[in-house]
Amino acid sequence: MEFSMKDFWNGNRRALARAITIVENERDGYEDIMKDIYHHTGRAQVIGITGAPGAGKSTLSDALIKQFRKQGKTVGIVAVDPTSPFSGGAILGDRIRMNDLTLDKGVYIRSMGTRGSLGGLSRKTADAVKLMDAFGLDVIFIETVGVGQSEVDIVKNADTTLVVLVPGLGDDIQAIKAGILEIGDVFVINKCDRDGADRLNVEIEMMLDLGEAQNWRPPIERTIANKDQGVEDVVTALGDHRKYLEESGLLEERRRERARSEMLEMIHDRISRHIEENLSKTGEFNGYVEDVFERKTDPFTVVDSIVGKIFK
Amino acid sequence: MEFSMKDFWNGNRRALARAITIVENERDGYEDIMKDIYHHTGRAQVIGITGAPGAGKSTLSDALIKQFRKQGKTVGIVAVDPTSPFSGGAILGDRIRMNDLTLDKGVYIRSMGTRGSLGGLSRKTADAVKLMDAFGLDVIFIETVGVGQSEVDIVKNADTTLVVLVPGLGDDIQAIKAGILEIGDVFVINKCDRDGADRLNVEIEMMLDLGEAQNWRPPIERTIANKDQGVEDVVTALGDHRKYLEESGLLEERRRERARSEMLEMIHDRISRHIEENLSKTGEFNGYVEDVFERKTDPFTVVDSIVGKIFK
Repeated sequence: MEFSMKDFWNGNRRALARAITIVENERDGYEDIMKDIYHHTGRAQVIGITGAPGAGKSTLSDALIKQFRKQGKTVGIVAVDPTSPFSGGAILGDRIRMNDLTLDKGVYIRSMGTRGSLGGLSRKTADAVKLMDAFGLDVIFIETVGVGQSEVDIVKNADTTLVVLVPGLGDDIQAIKAGILEIGDVFVINKCDRDGADRLNVEIEMMLDLGEAQNWRPPIERTIANKDQGVEDVVTALGDHRKYLEESGLLEERRRERARSEMLEMIHDRISRHIEENLSKTGEFNGYVEDVFERKTDPFTVVDSIVGKIFK
Repeated sequence: MEFSMKDFWNGNRRALARAITIVENERDGYEDIMKDIYHHTGRAQVIGITGAPGAGKSTLSDALIKQFRKQGKTVGIVAVDPTSPFSGGAILGDRIRMNDLTLDKGVYIRSMGTRGSLGGLSRKTADAVKLMDAFGLDVIFIETVGVGQSEVDIVKNADTTLVVLVPGLGDDIQAIKAGILEIGDVFVINKCDRDGADRLNVEIEMMLDLGEAQNWRPPIERTIANKDQGVEDVVTALGDHRKYLEESGLLEERRRERARSEMLEMIHDRISRHIEENLSKTGEFNGYVEDVFERKTDPFTVVDSIVGKIFK
């Protein structure tokens, strides 16, 4: 199971798989790989897909992928399941993708779960996207299972966010929607032959009216993904948004912002690790813990003094 | 809305409420309050309650509270909803508690939601527990809405964890249980008059057999919480566990561990804030971001150099 960057640059899919595994588990060589590939990133069209469970996200993204494949584009999918610390997220990728897409060499699918912290999951997703991007995949999907803060954080790694909704869900789901409406660049009403599609459309429009006016008004597309209906229009809308991002300078702005926040997060992680590996094992720190435990002092006073020393 | 520590020490409930608000929002004076009260913490019996949605956690904890009140003990509840970043968690506390408990001056209820990060929520929960403890409440419940990693993190602030299960839920729920079984010190099969209670009991026993042998074998109690059936036995089991923790030295050990991890987390937060407030706004850092964005360098190389300088 040797990994070589040469195989990676030669387009060997196994090398891509191994690279992601090394990066995901932060094994030796992780940083070298990321340093190597960084200069080759920034080319792919990165699309995030989110929406309530049961909205048909995976069916829709399968249909979208087929459209992109028809255009001759290669596609990567990072399927992320942050909801369970126990499944490791593997269920998602394995269950859904047992279809013809897995036989297509122009499609690369990878699922990721929560092994460490949620924050870690978002960064690992970003790294997997960069690896696929450098590998040369043209379009990369980031797919999440549900809707929640962690999903929102993960989807923020995309340039364009697709929000999938479905008619006829209850009030709880409607409430959740309010949160994901803010991040949607393109909306899809899937299963649009169901009752309530028109009402849902009106609701989305109303919510969009309530938001700040932007130069980009998110379009609302209608699909029946399992019959491939309306899917081409979604591809067009995604392309329109990409063009808008490029022409308005927003693509640059968002990516610069992302570079900034990624760097801050990395500094943060690095310092945490330093604290974990050094400070927390010293006799001095153990002494502080003992004093706090015995209430001879309080944690705030101790922390003030430790942090003061680091930044003195 | 002036806050005074004098009112707090005099047992004024409004002062407690204000103190929690100040701490929750990290307003001015937050650290002074925590420093002041720290020496008065460590007395309360802190109980975490978790379990699948629909298991009747809030009905059970209401019934438990009534038992503790009969014993003349005062009770605090921190009701935490980490699932939605949008509800602010207020729904939980407000919806459930519209009953006679709210009129009892020996019971203090507070709900908390996700306003910042999930990690932040766990720390805010810990702070609220400390405030209630120092205020003099005898028993403090930490209640969560669902089951997931964030709930597990929150419940870790308790000395004793009660896991509430209910017969006849589907396979998905059973899978989730595997995760919370590990943290249960006492199990309750609520709604035990339903079909499947015996089978559930056997399942829990089997899972407990699979785990490492411990000196404490978690008891499995059966309740019908809305009829107050079996609730007294749960109170007894909670007391037994507390006694076990004290006599075995585990209570000290767990609390020392918690002091340690809280301090590490505080150092972590403090350093992040320092980075956010100082480093990230400097022209030097902006220059690095620009270089990374233009791919003149990569984030890893830059971060290495920045972190190296901090710990030089």
